[in-house]
Amino acid sequence: MSRIGVFGGMGPQATVDFLDKLVRLTPASRDQDHLPVIVASLPHIHDRSRAILGTGPDPLPMLLSGIDFLNSSGVGVIAIPCNSSHHWYEQMSQRSAVPILHIAQTCVAAMAQSAGKVAVFATRGALASGFYQRALQARDIGFVVPDPDTAQAQVDSCIREIKAGNMAAGGAHLAAALADAHAHGATAVIMGCTEIPIAAQHAGDTPLTLVDSSLELARASVNYALARGWNRPGWDS
Amino acid sequence: MSRIGVFGGMGPQATVDFLDKLVRLTPASRDQDHLPVIVASLPHIHDRSRAILGTGPDPLPMLLSGIDFLNSSGVGVIAIPCNSSHHWYEQMSQRSAVPILHIAQTCVAAMAQSAGKVAVFATRGALASGFYQRALQARDIGFVVPDPDTAQAQVDSCIREIKAGNMAAGGAHLAAALADAHAHGATAVIMGCTEIPIAAQHAGDTPLTLVDSSLELARASVNYALARGWNRPGWDS
Repeated sequence: MSRIGVFGGMGPQATVDFLDKLVRLTPASRDQDHLPVIVASLPHIHDRSRAILGTGPDPLPMLLSGIDFLNSSGVGVIAIPCNSSHHWYEQMSQRSAVPILHIAQTCVAAMAQSAGKVAVFATRGALASGFYQRALQARDIGFVVPDPDTAQAQVDSCIREIKAGNMAAGGAHLAAALADAHAHGATAVIMGCTEIPIAAQHAGDTPLTLVDSSLELARASVNYALARGWNRPGWDS
Repeated sequence: MSRIGVFGGMGPQATVDFLDKLVRLTPASRDQDHLPVIVASLPHIHDRSRAILGTGPDPLPMLLSGIDFLNSSGVGVIAIPCNSSHHWYEQMSQRSAVPILHIAQTCVAAMAQSAGKVAVFATRGALASGFYQRALQARDIGFVVPDPDTAQAQVDSCIREIKAGNMAAGGAHLAAALADAHAHGATAVIMGCTEIPIAAQHAGDTPLTLVDSSLELARASVNYALARGWNRPGWDS
């Protein structure tokens, strides 16, 4: 019997969205059918994207503190619903006694190889880090990234507005970025930042297939826990 | 610098709703403006209402384990978004080195004394325990409880359906209970079980004033933390 560890707060609303997905993906008819979860929502961790781009302080010590906390909390696996933080995935994994599910690898593994031309929507830091591009290349899925001067600015604004709690504004920026991707021949979009699926609820319809990194991480987390029977009563035994 | 401790999982969807309220109530324009939160979502705790009614096992040892865990996790205050568990509030408070905010006292304290005739919607266990009735009496606010054979059965079904993830069914049962309260002269309803505010999103319009115990607990938690500056950066210092 163990627990899912969620390292959250990056950002806080995305953590809530991820937890909502965990609950909805768990087959349950009463409280006791659900999975035990420990959440460390630690929003003061330095901005991941800025650090990758060299314009902000290094969040790694704070990231490792969060991993240490969850390891001391009786969790059997860790999920981090923040894509950009996976720039430091190797260092966090080496520090952790329990496995950390990789959001981008989980997300790309869930995609059909026939996805067509995939646009990657993520922070500038995550794109500079390149872990989505490498995961897509490893599966031979073609991809594009937004033009840094136009569509990426819309993605940046989308993420910033959701982090500020402005859902409608976040949705409008995402809609503009989706229209641009569609105009450039994309058939699917990876929502490779956990604020983006929240914005998608406010972005209207799109002909593009949206791949939700947060949903895929939640699915992988639930499957990992169910396969090990963590939903069976007796958490304190 | 400290953290809000949330003892959740009773039930899991209500915990997500509570966390969503914490985030939305916090004035923030970026991740780092938010409050650090540690969540223990432990859904396997024995059914609180059944235990109070003498038809199920005692959850107190599990409740105390959760309080111990949060106390060892660096939290400065604890919120428990489950009304029925407050039957054991004294025992949990005595065990905890940090304050536990009382959901019912917080909720009733937020009400206008001119609320009129207030119906208390809660589990049968919480009503048998009587902590809402005592809090209302202490403030001289008149109240009624649903008829156990008719309206309370609707409240029970509402709670059960939300715990099972059936939002529309939960909303329909709540709508029936609200109509009954209105017909019996109530002017306000305390949603004294944290599943009920979720059902209220699916219950349609009502002329009654709805008082949300989960929202008031979230407001008290955020105010407690903001007053102590826990939103200021430096969580690991």
